[in-house]
Order: sequence, then structure tokens, then C-alpha cells
Amino acid sequence: MDVLLAGCRSRDVFVDLADKWSLLILLSLLRQGPQRFSELQRSVGGISRKMLSQTLRTLERDGVLVRTVHQDRTPPLVIYGLSELGAEVAEEARSLCSWAQRRALRVHEARAAFDERMRASESATGRALPQGVAARSESPAG
Amino acid sequence: MDVLLAGCRSRDVFVDLADKWSLLILLSLLRQGPQRFSELQRSVGGISRKMLSQTLRTLERDGVLVRTVHQDRTPPLVIYGLSELGAEVAEEARSLCSWAQRRALRVHEARAAFDERMRASESATGRALPQGVAARSESPAG
Repeated sequence: MDVLLAGCRSRDVFVDLADKWSLLILLSLLRQGPQRFSELQRSVGGISRKMLSQTLRTLERDGVLVRTVHQDRTPPLVIYGLSELGAEVAEEARSLCSWAQRRALRVHEARAAFDERMRASESATGRALPQGVAARSESPAG
Repeated sequence: MDVLLAGCRSRDVFVDLADKWSLLILLSLLRQGPQRFSELQRSVGGISRKMLSQTLRTLERDGVLVRTVHQDRTPPLVIYGLSELGAEVAEEARSLCSWAQRRALRVHEARAAFDERMRASESATGRALPQGVAARSESPAG
């Protein structure tokens, strides 16, 4: 069982979760508890209805999320919450999110330094890059 | 600073890392140490040259990965390794990967149960799914 192997059973489990929207939904459910679709859409900034709907379905199918329908309401109330399994992986999401929050400044500094080095190396070689390409121009070596 | 907010500085840091290829590359570098491009491509099963190249560039720009060029070799030897910052986030990657490996069986069981419920509810309502949807709902083997 090794996620580095493309055909391994654990790889496709990993792929469903190692995704920004999956992790942000899990984080929101961990922080704020069970929520309706519209609450989740407000909570996870920038997610589209379609992406939220698809990701909720994937997470429900994986057993990390539980979808409960309260039929005594009109229209029926649908609530999404973490399963026991989901609570575990939501802790992983929280840990990665927390790292990004703690280290955001250092990453932004690294990006600025990188872009500065690229600019310097471009002006040294007299090569001009199209706008926006600067960050992706080099070919891989090795 | 909150990754749930679309415009937050920490969100775009999170987005670069909350990605299957970023996390698998970090895991490989953590497990196996600094590597050449071709070694990484062998290590991270299923990654294309283009995706590896793009992801390495993003991670280098973020300061989590260090690219060292040994000019005394012909052709120059290019080695990718984790920075101090990268070693931290690689531990997050290892933790999420390890969860996926530990819980893969339970997730696959949940998927099979979900698909079974869907099939039962479809035959109860007499509704047929369009071709291709049924095939995608099956759990992959491996």
C-alpha cells in the first residue's frame, strides 16, 4: 500500500482528499459543525455550486461525510456533516491549512525573491519574456 | 489570515500545496532525499513530464523546494531537494498520505456501500442512468 504507486488502492483514496476544495470543505465542517449546502457555499470562499456539489458527492461516497435528509421539513432539510472517518481526515486538513496560514508570509517572500532572480537573469541574458510567463519559462533539467 | 476566505494571502499558499502532485513530490523528497528530475518522475507514479516540471517550478518559487545546479558536470547535474520550509510541509504531506494508506480499505468499503445504495434506489424508482455514469460509479480495483 503506497500512494506513490499510480495503481495502488490508497492512491485513489488520496486523490479524492488531496484537493483544495475537499480539504477546505472538511475544514469548514470541522470548525463550524454540520451545515446546509448554502451555508457551506458561503463558508468556503470562491467555490462554485457545481464544484461544491461534486465534491460533497465524492466525499459522501468515500464515507468521510454524512448527508442527512430531514423529511419532516418542507422542503426537506439536507445537512452535511463529518463521519467518524471524516473527523480524522479533517484534522489532517486543519493541520495543512494551519501550516499555510502560519507560513504564508515566508512563502510570499520566497515568491518575491524568486521573481526578482528571474527578472535579473532575464535582463542579464537580454531575453524578454511575454507577460505572465516569467514564473514558468524554464525547461526542466535532469 | 484564513484559508477559507478566497482573497486571503494564505489561500493561494494553501492552493499550491493542497494538490495531489505537490504533496506526492514532497513525500518522495522526504522519503528518498534529493533527486534528479528523472528520479522524481520514476518515484511519483503516473506524473507526466509537463506536470512534474510545472509543479517543481511552483514549489521552488514558493521556497519549499531547492533546485541546485552542479555546473562541474557535463551536462550540469540538477538536483531537487526540500528546503527547511519544505521539510515542514512535507511532514503534512506524509501525514495525509499515511492516513490514506491506513484507511484505504474503509474508504473502498464505503464506496461499495454507497454504489449499492444508489443502485437500489435507482431500481426502486425505475430510473436508468445514462451510459458512462454507471461505469464511473464503480470502485476501481487495485
